[in-house]
Amino acid sequence: MEKNITILGSTGSIGTQTLEVIGELESSGEHDFNVVALACGTNLKLLGEQAEKFDPDLVCVKDEKTKEKASNYLPNSTSALSGARGLQEVATLEETDLLVNALVGFIGLEPTLAGVRAGKKLLLANKESLVVGGELVGKAMDEGPGSSILPIDSEHNAIFQALQAGHIEEVERLIITASGGPFRETPIEEIPDATPDEALDHPNWDMGSRITCDSATMVNKGLEVIEAHWLFGLPYDKIDAVIHPQSFVHSLVEYKDGSIIAEMGDPDMKVPIQYTLTYPERYPNDYHKSTLAQIGRLDFRELETDRYPAFEVVVKSGKMGGNRPAAVNGADEALIELFLDEKIRFGDISTGLELILDEVQAIDEPTLQDLRDTDQWARDRVKGLYDEGTIGITGGEKL
Amino acid sequence: MEKNITILGSTGSIGTQTLEVIGELESSGEHDFNVVALACGTNLKLLGEQAEKFDPDLVCVKDEKTKEKASNYLPNSTSALSGARGLQEVATLEETDLLVNALVGFIGLEPTLAGVRAGKKLLLANKESLVVGGELVGKAMDEGPGSSILPIDSEHNAIFQALQAGHIEEVERLIITASGGPFRETPIEEIPDATPDEALDHPNWDMGSRITCDSATMVNKGLEVIEAHWLFGLPYDKIDAVIHPQSFVHSLVEYKDGSIIAEMGDPDMKVPIQYTLTYPERYPNDYHKSTLAQIGRLDFRELETDRYPAFEVVVKSGKMGGNRPAAVNGADEALIELFLDEKIRFGDISTGLELILDEVQAIDEPTLQDLRDTDQWARDRVKGLYDEGTIGITGGEKL
Repeated sequence: MEKNITILGSTGSIGTQTLEVIGELESSGEHDFNVVALACGTNLKLLGEQAEKFDPDLVCVKDEKTKEKASNYLPNSTSALSGARGLQEVATLEETDLLVNALVGFIGLEPTLAGVRAGKKLLLANKESLVVGGELVGKAMDEGPGSSILPIDSEHNAIFQALQAGHIEEVERLIITASGGPFRETPIEEIPDATPDEALDHPNWDMGSRITCDSATMVNKGLEVIEAHWLFGLPYDKIDAVIHPQSFVHSLVEYKDGSIIAEMGDPDMKVPIQYTLTYPERYPNDYHKSTLAQIGRLDFRELETDRYPAFEVVVKSGKMGGNRPAAVNGADEALIELFLDEKIRFGDISTGLELILDEVQAIDEPTLQDLRDTDQWARDRVKGLYDEGTIGITGGEKL
Repeated sequence: MEKNITILGSTGSIGTQTLEVIGELESSGEHDFNVVALACGTNLKLLGEQAEKFDPDLVCVKDEKTKEKASNYLPNSTSALSGARGLQEVATLEETDLLVNALVGFIGLEPTLAGVRAGKKLLLANKESLVVGGELVGKAMDEGPGSSILPIDSEHNAIFQALQAGHIEEVERLIITASGGPFRETPIEEIPDATPDEALDHPNWDMGSRITCDSATMVNKGLEVIEAHWLFGLPYDKIDAVIHPQSFVHSLVEYKDGSIIAEMGDPDMKVPIQYTLTYPERYPNDYHKSTLAQIGRLDFRELETDRYPAFEVVVKSGKMGGNRPAAVNGADEALIELFLDEKIRFGDISTGLELILDEVQAIDEPTLQDLRDTDQWARDRVKGLYDEGTIGITGGEKL
């Protein structure tokens, strides 16, 4: 059976890996995909190569300026759109069966809403869709013609798989594993003064710099808790995180009868990507597969909240709901930028998040525009906090 | 919904725990069971207490002699049967929905065959049904009116649960965990001279003495590989065992796409028992549940075949099929008896199994009677090996 697929964010890490998996499944004769459309930002060179290989009818790029240059890279059979409106169109194409949303950032929320309203089967890697827009997406799903969301993220994908062994109302707890990041062994009092180089040294996964930094602060796990809340419809007191340095167990579901179901394997994003592409079937592949004896040992320990104060702030924003996660998420990006520019201390990230959560003007049932405004306010306010010296290398120095 | 249930082997370890779980599910108002019949050997006192509490219409005991004494223990509303014929009748009662077979030994095979032929939903704890009679049971299932087998054994139950996350044809390997028994750290050259006290000192599970001894030799894992072969219909090269000292992970399924699904939790037989009783639903209970952080560490290592030579012999008997597993299983019981009586060395168990597998007169498509004869031959032959001095404390001494 041929599946028509559209990929938003095709030139990013998840997007390129998705196309690799599609190529592998096709060349093994296991599956037949028809790439309908691709969307990306400004990487026309890579988009051109992808279009050459997968021959989409349509692409969408960041803006008009980029679009004007696009024809130099694209085959004649491929038309181009641009901007938020183009993205909207690409996300709702009649012929699309599977819509992969691998966009990075706030920009991913609108196409998710559009895809859900159009009843698409959504393969979701865009964090903000649920972190920031969870309530809107949930409402769109309830009101829509019947959409489904398959999470690509390894933790949520693991939970999705483990949930096949039971029913959601039988779940005692979802347990999200966290590598613990580069500071899991660092003396706690030294962490606030960690350098960007130290924060970017992630032990298990090779990821972009925001997400790597987020795994040092454990903001990523807080965001994943919020995502899990919306994806699986469980209250926050049923979602835990546990430190698991080897990142071999991707997450677990504890059922009320005492059985814990885990999904595990070598950390390789292609595995959950492939699962979402072929679900409910599974197909063979030649990715590296360690045996348990080769792995040898799996460790688990409590997530220490004094080691990872930002985790608690993020989860708290989720529990409070409304526009607060949007504020925290926007602030986190701005704080990381300042940290990587060596303008603020590592410890200022959690301090800044806490201040933003205190200060944000709460909206309990935000519209999309409210969320956008909150995101922008948070970014501006972070700059303000830096400018006024509340956070910063000099202002924040301790000892 | 009320479920009518019959329990064979009600006074043994699994039988008593099954009745405890039934009592707990009923008193929590979660489930309604009607105990139709119970069968046991000679423990009339306990059977009487069980009959008092669960009011079965029918019981079956070992033999006529035991049956004559039974009326002293049973309520008036309960009738008694005896022997293999009584067991047959009890296993096929029209009104039974769930048939629990927790009999110990060869005697469990016939009621399994009878239950399958009668189309019962079978909750199976009797090892011999599949180890010895796998081919016959498989044939009965193919020819019967539609039966199903839910495994109670923690390893197979774990695999059964993990298989909910995929399809059997997508399985790369079943991975059965093994604690490694009391000799997992013992220098290999010392193991053959281990004493019964050393062999009975199982680190994780509190079990009977045959099964504890079998986990020292790893014969139990060999038998579980054979059971898994018949339960899940996979070839032997897709069934592995791995040493996992903590016994927290009960077993795993590796899928072809690289995802490994595990079922884990505190070692407590009530968990798999309850799962089979309430399947496909799961119900809450108040059994002790450790968190992963409390467990802290899970280890895995290769099963060393020079440490556990009996494992290979048992698996080999399974691969050869026919009446060979019956020979090995019968011989194992006889060898353990001699070992616990301090008549043979621990190392003689695997030596004896190997000799029996060499000597057994092979029958490729054995009848039930052939299997019975093979079992008896193996037990007699083990005695012969001891009498002639091929195995024994003195004959086998080394160094």
